[in-house]
Amino acid sequence: MTTFDVPPIGWVESPLNERSSAPHQADEGAPGAWLVFARSVLDGLQGLREGDQVVVITWLDRAQRDVLAVHPRGDPRRGVAGVFSTRWPDRPNLIGLHTVEITAIEAGRIRVRDLEALNNTPILDVKPILSGNIAER
Amino acid sequence: MTTFDVPPIGWVESPLNERSSAPHQADEGAPGAWLVFARSVLDGLQGLREGDQVVVITWLDRAQRDVLAVHPRGDPRRGVAGVFSTRWPDRPNLIGLHTVEITAIEAGRIRVRDLEALNNTPILDVKPILSGNIAER
Repeated sequence: MTTFDVPPIGWVESPLNERSSAPHQADEGAPGAWLVFARSVLDGLQGLREGDQVVVITWLDRAQRDVLAVHPRGDPRRGVAGVFSTRWPDRPNLIGLHTVEITAIEAGRIRVRDLEALNNTPILDVKPILSGNIAER
Repeated sequence: MTTFDVPPIGWVESPLNERSSAPHQADEGAPGAWLVFARSVLDGLQGLREGDQVVVITWLDRAQRDVLAVHPRGDPRRGVAGVFSTRWPDRPNLIGLHTVEITAIEAGRIRVRDLEALNNTPILDVKPILSGNIAER
C-alpha cells in the first residue's frame, strides 16, 4: 500500500490546550493564534499579506484515526454519520481545514484570527482563498 | 523530525492524464470524475448525498516537493510568489483542495462535477461544506 510521508511545515501557537474545551467551529469563540513556520519553508511565505484570507491545513494530532462513523458534534441524538459527511476531527487521515484571516506577519510567524486548532497542532500547508472559494488555483 | 504516515483513502478516475493539459481552476473546463474509495473506508461515506458540496483533499502526486517560490499560473510576467500565497501544485506537502458537487453515488464510488485533478490522483480525505464555507465543523 502506498503511503505519503508528510512532515509539518510549522506549528500552531494557541491558548487552546484541550480538545474538550475547543470550539467545534471557528465562529463559536475560537481565539487568535500564531502560525510558526519551520526555517526551511520561510521562502514559501512571501506574498502573504495582512488581511488575506487563507486556508490553514493541519494534522489533527490529538484525534483518532480508527473512526469511520460518529454522532455529529458528539450529540447522540443526531444519529450516526460517516466521518466523510462531517467535519468531526476523528477520521482515517487527520487533516483539518481552517479558514482564517491574517492579522499580522512577523519574521517566521503569522498571526491569524479565530483559529479553533489546539496549541502545537502541526501545520501541513497554507493556501490562499481566491474569489471567495477554495477551488484549486 | 516528526512526519505523518498518510495512506490514500481512494483514487480519482478522470479523463485528465497530463498535468500540462489540466485546467488551473475547476471552472476552466474541468471534467466530471469518479472518486473510487478503498474498501476499508466505505463506512465513512454514509450520509453523503447527491447534490452535496464537498471538499476533496488529494495528494498531487505528479507535482514537486522542492519548490518554495513560483511564477503564479506559470506566467513569468507575474513575478515570483511564495507557494503558500498561491494554489500552484508544487509545494513542500502536495496537498490539493477541490470543491466539487456530488452528482451520483454508487457502491464504493462517488461521481463529482468539475474536478481538475489528474487520473489516479490519490484521495486523502473528503469533508462537507457547511453553510457555504470550509471552517472546521
